[in-house]
Amino acid sequence: MKKVESTKVAVFGASGYTGEELVRLLLRHPQAELVAVTSRQYAGKTVAEIFPRAGSYAVARRLQFTDAAPEKIGKEAEVAFLALPHGVAVEFAGPLLEAGARVIDLSADFRIKDPATYREFYAHEHAAPNLLNDAVYGLPEIYRDKISGARLVACPGCYPTSVLLPLIPLLREKFIEPADIIANSLSGVSGAGRKAEIDYLFVECNESVRPYGVPKHRHLAEIEQELSIAAGTAVTIQFTPHLIPVNRGILTTLYLKPTTTGRIDLAFDTAYANAPFVRLLGEEKLPDTKNVVGTNVIEIAWRHDPRTGRLIVMSAEDNLVKGASGQAIQCFNLMCGYEETAGLI
Amino acid sequence: MKKVESTKVAVFGASGYTGEELVRLLLRHPQAELVAVTSRQYAGKTVAEIFPRAGSYAVARRLQFTDAAPEKIGKEAEVAFLALPHGVAVEFAGPLLEAGARVIDLSADFRIKDPATYREFYAHEHAAPNLLNDAVYGLPEIYRDKISGARLVACPGCYPTSVLLPLIPLLREKFIEPADIIANSLSGVSGAGRKAEIDYLFVECNESVRPYGVPKHRHLAEIEQELSIAAGTAVTIQFTPHLIPVNRGILTTLYLKPTTTGRIDLAFDTAYANAPFVRLLGEEKLPDTKNVVGTNVIEIAWRHDPRTGRLIVMSAEDNLVKGASGQAIQCFNLMCGYEETAGLI
Amino acid sequence: MKKVESTKVAVFGASGYTGEELVRLLLRHPQAELVAVTSRQYAGKTVAEIFPRAGSYAVARRLQFTDAAPEKIGKEAEVAFLALPHGVAVEFAGPLLEAGARVIDLSADFRIKDPATYREFYAHEHAAPNLLNDAVYGLPEIYRDKISGARLVACPGCYPTSVLLPLIPLLREKFIEPADIIANSLSGVSGAGRKAEIDYLFVECNESVRPYGVPKHRHLAEIEQELSIAAGTAVTIQFTPHLIPVNRGILTTLYLKPTTTGRIDLAFDTAYANAPFVRLLGEEKLPDTKNVVGTNVIEIAWRHDPRTGRLIVMSAEDNLVKGASGQAIQCFNLMCGYEETAGLI
Amino acid sequence: MKKVESTKVAVFGASGYTGEELVRLLLRHPQAELVAVTSRQYAGKTVAEIFPRAGSYAVARRLQFTDAAPEKIGKEAEVAFLALPHGVAVEFAGPLLEAGARVIDLSADFRIKDPATYREFYAHEHAAPNLLNDAVYGLPEIYRDKISGARLVACPGCYPTSVLLPLIPLLREKFIEPADIIANSLSGVSGAGRKAEIDYLFVECNESVRPYGVPKHRHLAEIEQELSIAAGTAVTIQFTPHLIPVNRGILTTLYLKPTTTGRIDLAFDTAYANAPFVRLLGEEKLPDTKNVVGTNVIEIAWRHDPRTGRLIVMSAEDNLVKGASGQAIQCFNLMCGYEETAGLI
Repeated sequence: MKKVESTKVAVFGASGYTGEELVRLLLRHPQAELVAVTSRQYAGKTVAEIFPRAGSYAVARRLQFTDAAPEKIGKEAEVAFLALPHGVAVEFAGPLLEAGARVIDLSADFRIKDPATYREFYAHEHAAPNLLNDAVYGLPEIYRDKISGARLVACPGCYPTSVLLPLIPLLREKFIEPADIIANSLSGVSGAGRKAEIDYLFVECNESVRPYGVPKHRHLAEIEQELSIAAGTAVTIQFTPHLIPVNRGILTTLYLKPTTTGRIDLAFDTAYANAPFVRLLGEEKLPDTKNVVGTNVIEIAWRHDPRTGRLIVMSAEDNLVKGASGQAIQCFNLMCGYEETAGLI
Repeated sequence: MKKVESTKVAVFGASGYTGEELVRLLLRHPQAELVAVTSRQYAGKTVAEIFPRAGSYAVARRLQFTDAAPEKIGKEAEVAFLALPHGVAVEFAGPLLEAGARVIDLSADFRIKDPATYREFYAHEHAAPNLLNDAVYGLPEIYRDKISGARLVACPGCYPTSVLLPLIPLLREKFIEPADIIANSLSGVSGAGRKAEIDYLFVECNESVRPYGVPKHRHLAEIEQELSIAAGTAVTIQFTPHLIPVNRGILTTLYLKPTTTGRIDLAFDTAYANAPFVRLLGEEKLPDTKNVVGTNVIEIAWRHDPRTGRLIVMSAEDNLVKGASGQAIQCFNLMCGYEETAGLI
Repeated sequence: MKKVESTKVAVFGASGYTGEELVRLLLRHPQAELVAVTSRQYAGKTVAEIFPRAGSYAVARRLQFTDAAPEKIGKEAEVAFLALPHGVAVEFAGPLLEAGARVIDLSADFRIKDPATYREFYAHEHAAPNLLNDAVYGLPEIYRDKISGARLVACPGCYPTSVLLPLIPLLREKFIEPADIIANSLSGVSGAGRKAEIDYLFVECNESVRPYGVPKHRHLAEIEQELSIAAGTAVTIQFTPHLIPVNRGILTTLYLKPTTTGRIDLAFDTAYANAPFVRLLGEEKLPDTKNVVGTNVIEIAWRHDPRTGRLIVMSAEDNLVKGASGQAIQCFNLMCGYEETAGLI
Repeated sequence: MKKVESTKVAVFGASGYTGEELVRLLLRHPQAELVAVTSRQYAGKTVAEIFPRAGSYAVARRLQFTDAAPEKIGKEAEVAFLALPHGVAVEFAGPLLEAGARVIDLSADFRIKDPATYREFYAHEHAAPNLLNDAVYGLPEIYRDKISGARLVACPGCYPTSVLLPLIPLLREKFIEPADIIANSLSGVSGAGRKAEIDYLFVECNESVRPYGVPKHRHLAEIEQELSIAAGTAVTIQFTPHLIPVNRGILTTLYLKPTTTGRIDLAFDTAYANAPFVRLLGEEKLPDTKNVVGTNVIEIAWRHDPRTGRLIVMSAEDNLVKGASGQAIQCFNLMCGYEETAGLI
């Protein structure tokens, strides 16, 4: 792909935490030119008014939210980011692609290849199954080449990113039992979005920790799809998310059964030798969300337990960056032939 | 007043943070017998279901929320606590008093003696001005005797309690200039109530501090009323509340001009010699909300600044206890002739 | 055992978070008379000076910390609580028992029946193996009768309490595979004690979550001892603690393999029918530490996952109350023949 | 000054929060080349090991902390940043200047022009009074030109920045009474540094708010020095700092007496027309630390109170960025002739 100096981008549905983070990352990206930001709620207001932390950018003080249609914006923007709810994003993708834009979707709408699985987990029919074949799962460390050439990228969910990056190399190398995987995840409250619900009030979350979505969280659909591909066999896992009182960060602890005495460190080293955002902590250090919050990095550490024979693998990421908007930018960089780290360090 | 072994009590509108704290305090009160708890939203559910932390009390596992009318409940309950929004509480007080119950109102409805002031600050006409004469301002350290005999007690707001207890002795003794009082207050988020609003989401409050209600917060009405009484002259003060990321606690810092070199410590010692919940820290220690949270105590400390000539007085309290429900119980104890500290330590 | 009106108690090493909570609980206990509180660091200061939140109790304003020897205090106190570090508590127990006091130890010193296991996990020889036979593991829901008659009680650790109460009934009924147990635990920072270490600074813990002690935390010694007793076979488990930014609270998520389609609810209902502090949430609700913080309650919920065949059991407790000081009081109540809930609700 | 493509910089004493933030900002600065980072404690370790969040920068993975002497480093580095404690920084400045480096000091050592004032507030003699004349107070919005040509810049304290930027324009225009200024400030815990002290433990700060340093905090020395210059008369103010449970952020509320009905908005607009990091919120909005944390922006808002005649001015900043390291970079940009915002947006 020919390298270009800059690319015109638009963000649809930029009113939540993911959208805000995406807009801020795009504003500081040296090769992204933000030409449109949509939000019905904020139409007519400038980006700087709604996102004060973006206020140092001249573009943010000038650019107004719009509720213009994708058909129109898709003619100007070369790449469109969808930070819309699932079930809504799907309605925007088609018109944007037809208008000539490439699409990076941060919702769940194009992550699941099988419409039946989508229906099972999201409780309604997929609205554009014809586009599913074009969609590439936006995990750059795994699908770097496909993403480069994609016109429609489905960015992974925050939990899936934290589960898949540690597990895929181990499953590919057949170092662990695919039938015996447990993922225990802890997420900051921004993962719930900017929704006015009692459950997410400060007083309800502060000095509180609680599991939720037990035992069948929606993110299982994409996690198991990708693990099955890596394992070459159908994989079903146990996954329990918990809400903890931090703004940002996901910590995932994986309980695994090794099949081999093979070198875990080599499996990870090989898989992520060229992955600028995977930080392998090995058997010495342990991950901490505060070491990755505000960055696009995922930390991965592991331990063998000689007492139980199990392998414990742990990961830490920022749910809004590596788990959402930063990963979307990483995909954008690949799609445009930019440095993979452009705008992200 | 003849001491009785126990008193039947009811709580109206017990669905918020203040109501929950009140119910919990009443459940552990050795002389309060909780006979009714109302909430339209929770009618039919037990107290223990809605307030799990109260679940160790047999009464909480049995007693169900009701939406019965005050006319009915007022016949059984001897004392009714109103944890209703202002403008609503006023509608319940009359029928309860008529039914023979004494009323302890935690809303603002009966705090302001002058209906015109009420209208100015609360933007509507007072609905029962005829009851205002009966209402006693429920600050036990100041109005102990009146509260004992009252049939209608208007419990102070959380901020007013933190401002009035440090200031009233100084104004009564004419130790400070009444025309030059500044109160800077910091409050935990429970002060905003259990409302599903974006502003009070965890992510919006955590890692944030902000002023609000500048320069004319509603609590000024009652603060200035009571300060004027203490000073014997009309007092207008500067008051700025701020929201800080704690569940509970108010810290107020008062900037004052002394009129005298009089002994501040003696003024406080004298005023609060028999006040079991006022902890005078003097000139050595400084208050900290964590030392009072979960208790009915207010801490008060002070410093003279020889460089500026000002007197700095600081107070700390739990906004839900001494600033609301604990203080209501303290009034209840006085009204029933119980130990002032009953159920509160 | 003959019921007495009150019991003289002493607390040794009351300077940390556990000691503070214990002192506060004893001050409000209707049948405990606190006669001595020791701390080398605070000797000569009153309890109220060091623990302001206890300041409403007359005893706290009068009683001074002492560094008197256990030989002396053991003559006055009928029951001595040890809130000392492990390795230190053991030195106090002998002299206290000899002086005639009964001892409730909150350290790890008497939890492990096998001195070799103690050495393996605590890295030094046990200093009083002769006392181990007398020690009763202080988990009232499991050892109610033995505790009643004990002269030396070893209170469980905070994590063990959260793991054992959900697991013991299931192992006893042989409802789960003893060889396939994973415990993922999250703890508030008070669990680390009041130690001036960089790792526990506000800025290091706030907006952070991290695993630690992987894979062999000391608490495994007592957890596996008690699980083995319940299962009737040697049990080795996987246990991973994590530090989360709350002051108090432990949330444990257990991943289990059922052996049966037996009624989990009946197993729990039967085991805890008379346990006033076990709140069974069943398959409908999920635990939340905020529902138990400040109480002696442990919440337990469970879910079968038809997709994986696993059983997920979750518990929530306050690490300083049910996980330490509250449980010690519960043991005290049993030892003295008081209501099990005395001073705890 | 001739514009150069890049400047070699060194950071001394980079082990605390300020040093870490400074290093991260320098790593992403397009024109700063980090050639040395000193820390006795971390000597031999890479920057990436100690500051994981900086780990995405190749330089951070390569550059090791050193304990080399300033004489040596000052020959390579063109600009040296001192993130050392006060009283230590002063010992490094002389050798660095002699070696030819320009010095940007983040400690208090060169902020106070009068050695007697320094002695009064810092309790020891100034160790290099001969350098005081060369030192420029590093508040770019006020001393832009002097900073550009300085060889020794004394960066303001975090509180002083939050107090001075709102007040200086008002004092210069004589819009407020210089004798009647009250500053109430709230600071996040990172302001206390990375010190292993009980007072700053998570459990001691979380769910707590407290005043400290009442009534004579050290920052008063520089605040009053700069206010006196602006007012053209000696100014003494009231200043009360408070500790609040956030990692970062300072919120200052100023209580002022206007001398005029002059246009406050014009005073601010004029003063900060060319200040890229001052965000004037006017009389409509209120500041919130979450809007500035992680940025070099200071927000300023104001309100006239017709009831009291006072003017309330409020500011919000990130204590580690605009209050320390970001401001140091801003000075660096001016000194090197770079864009004032280089590396800061």
